[in-house]
Formats: sequence, structure tokens, C-alpha cells
Amino acid sequence: MKHALNVTREADFAAWYQEVIAEAEMAEESGVRGCMVIKPWGYGIWERIQTLMDARIKAAGVQNCYFPLFIPLSYFAEEAEHVEGFAKEMAVVTHHRLISDGKGGLVPDPEAKLEEPLIVRPTSETVIGKAMSRWVQSWRDLPLLTNQWANVVRWEMRTRMFLRTSEFLWQEGHTAHADRDDAMVETLRALEMYRSFSEDCLAMPVIAGEKPENERFPGAVATYSIEAMMQDGKALQAGTSHYLGTGFAEAAGIRYQDREGGQQLCHTTSWGVSTRMIGGVIMTHGDDDGLRVPPAIAPHQIVILPMLREDDGDAALLAYCEELRAALAQQWALGEPVRVLLDKRAGKATNKRWGWVKKGVPLILEIGGRDAAGGQVSVIRRDRLYREDGKVQFAAMAKDGFVAQATAELEDVQRTLHAEATARRDANIHRGIDSLDALGKFFGEDQRYPGWVELAWSRPTGDALEQVVQQLKALKLTIRNTPMDAAPVSGQCVFTGQPAVERIYVARSY
Amino acid sequence: MKHALNVTREADFAAWYQEVIAEAEMAEESGVRGCMVIKPWGYGIWERIQTLMDARIKAAGVQNCYFPLFIPLSYFAEEAEHVEGFAKEMAVVTHHRLISDGKGGLVPDPEAKLEEPLIVRPTSETVIGKAMSRWVQSWRDLPLLTNQWANVVRWEMRTRMFLRTSEFLWQEGHTAHADRDDAMVETLRALEMYRSFSEDCLAMPVIAGEKPENERFPGAVATYSIEAMMQDGKALQAGTSHYLGTGFAEAAGIRYQDREGGQQLCHTTSWGVSTRMIGGVIMTHGDDDGLRVPPAIAPHQIVILPMLREDDGDAALLAYCEELRAALAQQWALGEPVRVLLDKRAGKATNKRWGWVKKGVPLILEIGGRDAAGGQVSVIRRDRLYREDGKVQFAAMAKDGFVAQATAELEDVQRTLHAEATARRDANIHRGIDSLDALGKFFGEDQRYPGWVELAWSRPTGDALEQVVQQLKALKLTIRNTPMDAAPVSGQCVFTGQPAVERIYVARSY
Repeated sequence: MKHALNVTREADFAAWYQEVIAEAEMAEESGVRGCMVIKPWGYGIWERIQTLMDARIKAAGVQNCYFPLFIPLSYFAEEAEHVEGFAKEMAVVTHHRLISDGKGGLVPDPEAKLEEPLIVRPTSETVIGKAMSRWVQSWRDLPLLTNQWANVVRWEMRTRMFLRTSEFLWQEGHTAHADRDDAMVETLRALEMYRSFSEDCLAMPVIAGEKPENERFPGAVATYSIEAMMQDGKALQAGTSHYLGTGFAEAAGIRYQDREGGQQLCHTTSWGVSTRMIGGVIMTHGDDDGLRVPPAIAPHQIVILPMLREDDGDAALLAYCEELRAALAQQWALGEPVRVLLDKRAGKATNKRWGWVKKGVPLILEIGGRDAAGGQVSVIRRDRLYREDGKVQFAAMAKDGFVAQATAELEDVQRTLHAEATARRDANIHRGIDSLDALGKFFGEDQRYPGWVELAWSRPTGDALEQVVQQLKALKLTIRNTPMDAAPVSGQCVFTGQPAVERIYVARSY
Repeated sequence: MKHALNVTREADFAAWYQEVIAEAEMAEESGVRGCMVIKPWGYGIWERIQTLMDARIKAAGVQNCYFPLFIPLSYFAEEAEHVEGFAKEMAVVTHHRLISDGKGGLVPDPEAKLEEPLIVRPTSETVIGKAMSRWVQSWRDLPLLTNQWANVVRWEMRTRMFLRTSEFLWQEGHTAHADRDDAMVETLRALEMYRSFSEDCLAMPVIAGEKPENERFPGAVATYSIEAMMQDGKALQAGTSHYLGTGFAEAAGIRYQDREGGQQLCHTTSWGVSTRMIGGVIMTHGDDDGLRVPPAIAPHQIVILPMLREDDGDAALLAYCEELRAALAQQWALGEPVRVLLDKRAGKATNKRWGWVKKGVPLILEIGGRDAAGGQVSVIRRDRLYREDGKVQFAAMAKDGFVAQATAELEDVQRTLHAEATARRDANIHRGIDSLDALGKFFGEDQRYPGWVELAWSRPTGDALEQVVQQLKALKLTIRNTPMDAAPVSGQCVFTGQPAVERIYVARSY
């Protein structure tokens, strides 16, 4: 069967991913090392993610701020002192002026060398911590709940669009609390916000859980994540939430006077999701015809394509389509007005159709002169594009009937994408593996997309954990997380032979 | 009369400006040179500006994208070749890694020096031009209308919060067109969008017009601006729109095949507004009690302050206030649902009141136990805070009556702020000055806040213009712009003695 893309998921998942991004016009290489250009369709999806996530962040009482792009080098030195494994791949600003090199080119002006280099923020704990130390004086100022939407830079040697780029867009929440309990409640609130957002808005099932000690954010006391299974069976960490204890508060001097007049260190948290989520959406919902966008985050949920013939009939056809557009724009779906586009551009209707198929618009309405005359619409549902015989599946419906059920159709697409992804995920979590050998065999070469394995383990720490990590690394595997609220386990740890205390997911990952 | 701020506008306008920002908790110094922290109230105003402006940008068919933060040095070299006066104060990234200096500190790793330095974008014409050169092939691809919301950096030696900071937030529109006419239509569309946005949303009257040749964006064929008069009589350039001709297209290679099959250069435009607008709002509407925020951009339009007494009566009072809040949130004003906050924080009610006064919330409702029992509300309108006797002016009203007229009240505050600013601006534009001597006298030391002068001039260019610019500079004056659609002029140019051809505004400026 012929599909809209040249590469199938089956044939080459990595190449397929790149082709979806190119053909759906989501992003492209910028010519600047490690940085991408996010094109209107990709950015429109990010704007939808921002809108929906920001509403949740605000509803939790968190206030948006904006903090500097640049962080003085000395702030990192303070942190580096108490943080082992401190990531050092960062963009360093050393000069503030260019001058002519006398040969028609430009060079950094040696006279304009900064006394202290500035780092382009890789994350903002340090600079926000300094602000918090000014803002928090008394227990009355707590909790202090802040967030920012920003760009950050982490120098990456190997980049992949949306998944790992040197510059990316994200939100970073930073909060300060009077004690551990309050900070943990916030850490888990953010985790649950991410979990429900992924399920409800991205239609992307995720496992929320705690990362093992070796995967903690440097300096964190506990790191939690949501993990999604991509269609190649690999895991994608799609959001993290950290309980930072008092370490960052100590480095930044975030102290408060308690009700008894004593000085206390705050307990802080941080949590973030990024444009990486878009990579997750592609690899969760994309198919061999391109992207499929869940209606909740689709910039356009419905596109109307008039079959223009460049003749006298076009005016009536366009009037009919405009009436349809206006009627649909009055409908609501998933709690918001329906987003509908009438695509009047010149060009062949079938080319335009396949363009929107590749972009993954949930519903495409093709309207010809006869449809207009008969008060009909021809509906393509992106999530069931083909009939059993391999031809594109159109549903012919009365216009008014379609308008009346547009809400239900969109909500059904959202539900269907989620159900499909959940069923696939659940079918690819494997249990009952009871030895390292069996694990190695399971992830052997014969199984290209083996999915995840759920194991029971004894939660080793320190050197014992490091040994487990190395054993898994030899199999190209990582521990994803320990799921929240899982049923108790019994039996032995696969790695240590000691009594198992909790479940973990083990998988290949992005 | 006692006011909420320590410094009045009259006593020291610059110090007053800083105090408003501090007391309204809008922003503060970050500890990072030239960069500010934008606090929740300041950022909330920016979010409102973004929301309202973004809707206008999208309604014009412009699509949001995101382009890289970093621009390779060589891109600027290309531009520098054909652009005199090219600004060179920019942040230069030269390294991509930090290492330990062996003494407990960190330094840029000499092994990780970039082959080509990267510039933190001061504006994105070059990098967006490169993308446009890939995206534009044929006349069918035109016009290409893009915008991005982003942070940019221009190294500034003397900074002032919101008005001039090394890093600031803005939107930058970039468009490519088939010919000059189409590009000029877009340039002027953006200008008019900024003008009407300022008037309608910021309640800030502005003059839209063309900048003189010497004030053009480097490389532009024509630069237009909106200019607002601050309460000290100085001008603030609050937005610009540039027609760039074909120069940038040539540097970036933005060419298209026309209908006849020939290769043509595109004509491009760019236009932007920034967080500077917030500085304009402060200096247009602020008074000696702090900020006054126009309802259209107020994060909260109405704040309800229950006079809590920490006794048994509080529950009934809060229930009454919550009912009021819910009723107000159902109302619409200025085309959107009313934004109302019930401020339940602990603390003295008068302290809380003055906090909101300084933040400039349009309507403050103080509700005591007796108000609740009697079905009343006490209303403070921020734009008429005091009675004639200098006491705070409360209007006691029936609750339902207030709810019914909340829309009208908010819309009246918006209108009143605009009318007040317009009347002040109009009263401070002076005409009839017919010589350079008279101009010098008018802006002499005796007049601290002289406002603007409207002159007729002969629109000199080149050296003749430079002479005018220097004459004005000696008086600390600049030409702001030539207003659009002004009535024809007669008489002689004040500077050259030649026949005058158009009006200009001359003023001190930020």
C-alpha cells in the first residue's frame, strides 16, 4: 500500500521521524549549529501546549515571571562546589562588542572582554534562587510559586529536532516552601499536572514515577518523571519534577523567619517540560502518512478544502464553505471554540489534501460543487484515513448534520488516539522476566521494538546501584522510573538477589 | 497632600519612575549586568500585551515561528558590508564548555573554543532572511508573513528598567513581498496596528509617522514609528516598522520566480514592539500613588478586599465576597471576561489596599462585615482615587447594582485614562515657533517639561540634514517623526529657510 511518506516507521524509524517533521513543515535545520527553526505548524502546536499548560500552572497559584538569559559564571561555581556531575556544556559569553578585523570581517573586540564571563542559562535554579533570597523573608512569604516560559541552551554534540537541540523552549517552575512536606506536595502536584496534561491534551499515555538515584537532577533529593513509550518501543522522558531539599536554598541563601522567630532554610522544587513534548507527540501518534495531531493541541482542528475549478462556480462554492466555516467556528469541543480553517489557497485540491494529511489535521472536509449544491460535506478523519481496500475513506454527510456532530467527532478523535496509544503501550510492557540473562535475551537483536520491561528490584544505592546501571548499559538499557502508587511486590531483585521492594521500568530510551 | 509614593513626578521624574516600578512590584535589578527580573505584576501586564497584540498579528495572516537565539558572526559580516552605522554592541559566545580552574573556580575551556563565534541575536533580520531564502521560490509563496516572540540582547552601557535593558522581550515581524507596493502596504499595516493597539489597549495616545533619514534602522529604506508623550514631556518611541527595500533580500538571497519566469529580489519589512511599552504605560498613566493600569492590560481588573477580622464573622464575609467574585467573573468588559481577584491573604486591609493602589488595579472593592450584611460594596476607582478634600473616595453601592455596571465602569476607566493622556499630550504640543532661536528659547531651562514642538521643514537630506541634527543635538533635541496624513504646510523651513514641505515633531526623548 502506498503512503504519503517515503519512509515507513517499520523500515527506518529515525528516518521516518525526520521525514514527518519535514513533510508536516514543523521545523528545519537553521544553519546554526544545534539550533532549529520552528515553522508555523510546529510552533502552532507549541502555542497550544503553552496555552493549555499555562492555564494549569496559573490555576495552581503559580505566577509567571521572567529572569535573565545570562547567568554570571560565579553562580555556577557556587553550585559546582556542592554538585557532583555538574553539566558543563554551556554557551559562554566572553565579549560584548564586535569590531572590524581590517580585512572586511568582524571579530570580538579584545577591548570588550567581560571581566566575568556570562553563561547562557541551561536552567535557572541559580539566578531564580538569588531572586528568591530577596523575596522570601518570613513564613508569610511562603510558599513562593514562580514559573517562566523561556529559551535555554545546553551545548549538545548530537542533536535531533525537538528531542535534543542546543537551544530549546520550555517552562521552568521554581518554588520555595517552609518544609519538606509542603515542597513534596508541590513536587508531586507538578508531576501529576504533567501526567494528566500528557494524557488529556497530548493523548499520550505516560507513567509517572520516581527516577532512580543515578538519574536525579544534579543536587536534587528526588527526581520524578513522566515516561512515554514511543512507537519504536523506546522510552521518552517527557517532563520532570524535582524536590531539591535545602541544598539550593543554602547555596542561594533562601532563608525565612519562622513563626517562632528562628531562621530556617527553605525547601525548594523545580519542574519543567519543553518542546521535546512535540517529539513525543510525533512518535506517539504519527503514522506512515505523517503526523496525527490530537485535536486538543491542533492549531487547526478542521480544515475545509474547496475543490476550486477557477471558473464561475467558485464563488458559490466559496460562499458555501464560508458558511460552513462560520457554523463550525460557533461550535465548542474539548472546552474551547472549534478551530477551523478555510483553505482558499490556489493549487490542486489533492495536493492540498495530502499537505493537511501530513500535518495531521484531525478532520479534513473536501467540498466540491456537487457537495455545495446538495448541502453535503465529504469528511476525512485523519485517525482512520483508509478504507479496508486501501483507498482514502470519505464520509458523505449532510452539512447541518456534520456541524451538529463536529464536537463529538473531534472529541472522539482525541479519545481514539489516546486509546490506541494506551493499548499499544500496555501491550508492550513485559513482565515476568526474572534474571539478568533473561533480560538480555529479551532485548536481543531479534526483537527490534521490544518495548519496556517491568521488573521488581531491591532499590540498591551507591556502588550497588552503579553496578546495576553498568549491567544495563551493556544492554543499552536504562531504568526509566518507579511508578507511583504501584501494587506491592514480592520475590527477589533481578539484579541483587535481595528481597524486591518496588517495581521499575527498564527500556531503551531517547 | 500625602501620597503613597515617597517621590512625586514633579520633584524627580526619574526617581519617581524607579519608585513606581519597585512599589508596584513590576521588576527589579537582577544582579546580572543590564538584565532585569520581571516580577509577576510586570510580567502579567506583558502577558496581556502579548495576548492582545498576538491576536492582531494573527488576524493579519502573519504566522508565528521561532528562530535561533544564536547568529553566526559571518551573517553580520555580510550585513556590515552594506550597512553603515551597523551596531556592534552585542553579546558574543566564544566557548561551549566550562572546566575547573584547579582553584575551586570555573573557566571557559580553551579546548572548547568555537571555530566561529556566535552572536546572541540583537534582532533577527539576518537569520530569518536565510530561512526566507529557503522558503520563497515562486510568486505563489508571497507574501511570506512571519513573526516571533523572543528575547533579544543589545549590550547597553546605561540601562533603565523596561526602557533600555541589555536583554529585553519583544515581537519581531518579518515579511517578504513581490514588490515595493505590497511591502509598503505591510509596513504601514503594522504601523497602524501599533497605533491602534497603543490607543485602544494601552490607552496611550501616539503619533504615527515616518522617522527622518538619520533615524532609520540601518539598511532600511524607510522607518516609521509611533511616538508617545510621557508626563515629563519627553517622547518615547514605542514601536517601529521598517520598509527594507531589497537590500536585506540581496544579502540573504531571497529571490522568487515571477509569473513570467524571471528571477526577482523580494522586498522585505520588519516591525517590532517590546517590553519598552510597559515603560510607556508607567510614564503615561502613573501618578504619585503609583501605577494606574488601563483595564485592557490589567492582569486583575477588579480586586476584592475582604476586611477580615480573624473572628467568626470571616466565614460569612468570605462567602459574600466569593459570591461577588463569581458574579463579576461572569461579566464581560472590553470584549473579554472580567478578570477579578478575591484577595484572601492575611494582613491588614489598608496595607493590602495601598498595595493594590500602587499596582494600579482599576477597581478595588473593600468589603466589611456591615457591607456584607447590607448587600453593599465599597468601590475605589483608581483613576479618581481622592475626593476634593484629599481623602480616599469610596462609592457605596448595592452589590447587584455594582455587578450590573462593572462592565461600564471598567470601560469608563479605559476611556478616561485615554482621554486624560490625550488632553495632556495635545496641550503640550506647541506650534508657531518659526526660528532656531525661538526653539532654543522654548526649550530653555525655565521650562522643565516643555513638551513637543511641531515645526514645518523642508525635509533636508544628507549633509544638510546632518547639520539640522547637530543643531538640535546642541539643544538636546531630536526629530521624532513626520506624522502620517497631516495637513499640508506652507511657509519656510525653520532650519534651511527653504520652502517647508511637511511637519515634524521635535522633542527631548528617551
